[in-house]
Amino acid sequence: MVDPKRVLQNLDELRALTSDEQGAQRVAWSPIWLKARAWFEEKLKDLPVEHHYDAAGNHWVTLSGQSEQALVIGSHLDSVPNGGWLDGCLGVLAGLEILTSLANEYNGKPPCTVRLVDWADEEGARFGRSLFGSSAFAGSHTINADRARTDREGTTLEAALRNCGIDVEHIDEAATEQKNIAAYLELHIEQGPILEKLAKSLGVVQGTKGVERWAITFHGQEVHSGSTPMEVRRDALAAAAKLALEIRPIARKHPQSVATMGSVKTFPGIVTAVVGRCEATLDMRDLDVSVLAGMLREAREASERFAKEERCSVQWSKIWSIEPIPFHPELIKLCEDAIVETAGTSEQLPSGPLHDAAEVARLGIPTVMMFVQSLNGLSHNRAEDTSRAHVEQAVVALHRLAAKTIEWIQQR
Amino acid sequence: MVDPKRVLQNLDELRALTSDEQGAQRVAWSPIWLKARAWFEEKLKDLPVEHHYDAAGNHWVTLSGQSEQALVIGSHLDSVPNGGWLDGCLGVLAGLEILTSLANEYNGKPPCTVRLVDWADEEGARFGRSLFGSSAFAGSHTINADRARTDREGTTLEAALRNCGIDVEHIDEAATEQKNIAAYLELHIEQGPILEKLAKSLGVVQGTKGVERWAITFHGQEVHSGSTPMEVRRDALAAAAKLALEIRPIARKHPQSVATMGSVKTFPGIVTAVVGRCEATLDMRDLDVSVLAGMLREAREASERFAKEERCSVQWSKIWSIEPIPFHPELIKLCEDAIVETAGTSEQLPSGPLHDAAEVARLGIPTVMMFVQSLNGLSHNRAEDTSRAHVEQAVVALHRLAAKTIEWIQQR
Repeated sequence: MVDPKRVLQNLDELRALTSDEQGAQRVAWSPIWLKARAWFEEKLKDLPVEHHYDAAGNHWVTLSGQSEQALVIGSHLDSVPNGGWLDGCLGVLAGLEILTSLANEYNGKPPCTVRLVDWADEEGARFGRSLFGSSAFAGSHTINADRARTDREGTTLEAALRNCGIDVEHIDEAATEQKNIAAYLELHIEQGPILEKLAKSLGVVQGTKGVERWAITFHGQEVHSGSTPMEVRRDALAAAAKLALEIRPIARKHPQSVATMGSVKTFPGIVTAVVGRCEATLDMRDLDVSVLAGMLREAREASERFAKEERCSVQWSKIWSIEPIPFHPELIKLCEDAIVETAGTSEQLPSGPLHDAAEVARLGIPTVMMFVQSLNGLSHNRAEDTSRAHVEQAVVALHRLAAKTIEWIQQR
Repeated sequence: MVDPKRVLQNLDELRALTSDEQGAQRVAWSPIWLKARAWFEEKLKDLPVEHHYDAAGNHWVTLSGQSEQALVIGSHLDSVPNGGWLDGCLGVLAGLEILTSLANEYNGKPPCTVRLVDWADEEGARFGRSLFGSSAFAGSHTINADRARTDREGTTLEAALRNCGIDVEHIDEAATEQKNIAAYLELHIEQGPILEKLAKSLGVVQGTKGVERWAITFHGQEVHSGSTPMEVRRDALAAAAKLALEIRPIARKHPQSVATMGSVKTFPGIVTAVVGRCEATLDMRDLDVSVLAGMLREAREASERFAKEERCSVQWSKIWSIEPIPFHPELIKLCEDAIVETAGTSEQLPSGPLHDAAEVARLGIPTVMMFVQSLNGLSHNRAEDTSRAHVEQAVVALHRLAAKTIEWIQQR
């Protein structure tokens, strides 16, 4: 039988071991992260499993089954600096509990193989490269672009990896782990306010939203704030301010779209000068690829209109984008059933943040994620929280989902 | 006779001596500024004048007249880094030409004393304290607030002054120079686009606008840009963007008002987070004290309304303010006459930027300024320019104004 209280105990133990008063400090490739991984290895001692680290530092724990077809449950032990007590590690420790209970239920030999993966460096907190391990696994990693990345102290990603016994030249060999994977499940905290607002403890994730991330620069003219009449100004901030407000109705046309101007920089940025140049960032997300493309087009047209109105010019430069990644419809249905059986009610929602599951789903591996309610929508800081009762429900529901997925794999 | 071409020659000579390809480099208290002042002293050699530096580093050149009542013509040789070829030094070198021609016209003894002052550190470019010398002269200097100011290298204002032979403890003694001053005139480039737009070469300055300068901080909530629906956000940037746009109609209600948001800073200021805190600056100016107070009140009320709409809070913190300083009505009339006689047409306009003349006028000394047209409204960079014909007209008009003012002083 699955024991959700043991998951809470493990979470508390890990928190005591790897947090300080500012929060969790399990930044990937750091001594505290390695300590968390060593602690986790200890937890495997009495289980009938094989475990190893792949070429990219992902930790694979395998409970061999009667078939080589494998169900994989994954998440990550690494955290952002000053992180919360649940982000990532909930999924790994819940997965450990499912593996433990399946080993017991099937006397060490379930109908199909069950594997647990602790992905390396999901957060990208130190080198700015999220989903490091899962993208190496998926073959979507760009070694040459990433090997020269440095942290604040100037240490390269390559050197940090070498310290952890990983050779950046060979991380693509992690793709060998893809073999025989029949399905992938991931439990994560929502990190948003939707389930709390709906008073639901658990939800099925439909997929991860596509992201369009752009740098937008308005060029006007820097002039003296005291001597330049209002009507002759070419105020780059005014154009950017109009765009900051306009992206909101653009996003609100669609129920799940979001659009965010997260950074604005003004140049020269002094109290006595009209802003001559304004640099802003835009991040837009939606689960529907055509909705996302439409939003981007509308924002771009609006920026050109505002630039014209303010007699400025505007330039767009892409920072990064990713297409929406929908999860597997049959696994979505199984997840919905598992949640309803556990909590009485479910909800379907997309994930705004990216997760390792997106890299797995891109390969065509049937994938689904389950979200558990976050309190106040907060994450990536020590105020991140979820009620302990909801954590327990999540473990029970994940166990139900794993059982259903094993059955589904056998029937394919 | 006044020789306006000699002023142009001197301007060219000073430019060659104290500029590089980035523009003028006569930053106060620097070796290049001292070189400019030494060059200027050479120009006095053949004139029947006494000259000395006062306790604050202002340079006074005195042509004694039949009466001790003194007409003072002033401006400044210091520049911002990468400055223009006219800002400040035009007024000093035009003043030198007037002094020279008056000495000739009256055989070294005009009806009243005529003095020229080169104010020290008008720009405040290095230590952020504008009008240094003229405020010491006017007794409005705040020694204790300013002595600890440092430049980028950490040098204190006090130490920089000591290097130039000035003891910060005694700068208030510059006030002794106030004795017998009957009128003050200052010629300056407009640094704005108004005269050019009206196709007028010269204008009378009605006074310097009052300034209200504030730091405004909106507090919202930092949340994840991917997981937080639009309708639950508390976006501090949105509130600031509304204010950036609203200050414009507030200023446009009054023909000469200006309002500028020159700096916006976003926190955490990253592409993936809704702005939790937004810091902005506001600078508002008008010549009418009640108009200025009304604008400030409207902006403040608007900011509170926008904060409420966005479920943010807002704080205002004063950076600095100064009341409007009107110039002397009779000198304004004399200046108008001098300009019309020279250029055929004149214009009255307020000064948005502050000038040393404002410190003099605050003392109750009858004061007026004359503006010469700037091209494209540009200043404080090497693109600053004025047509050479307009510079010549300005010198002729200033000479006429000086003659009229000497007559006016005698008749009082």
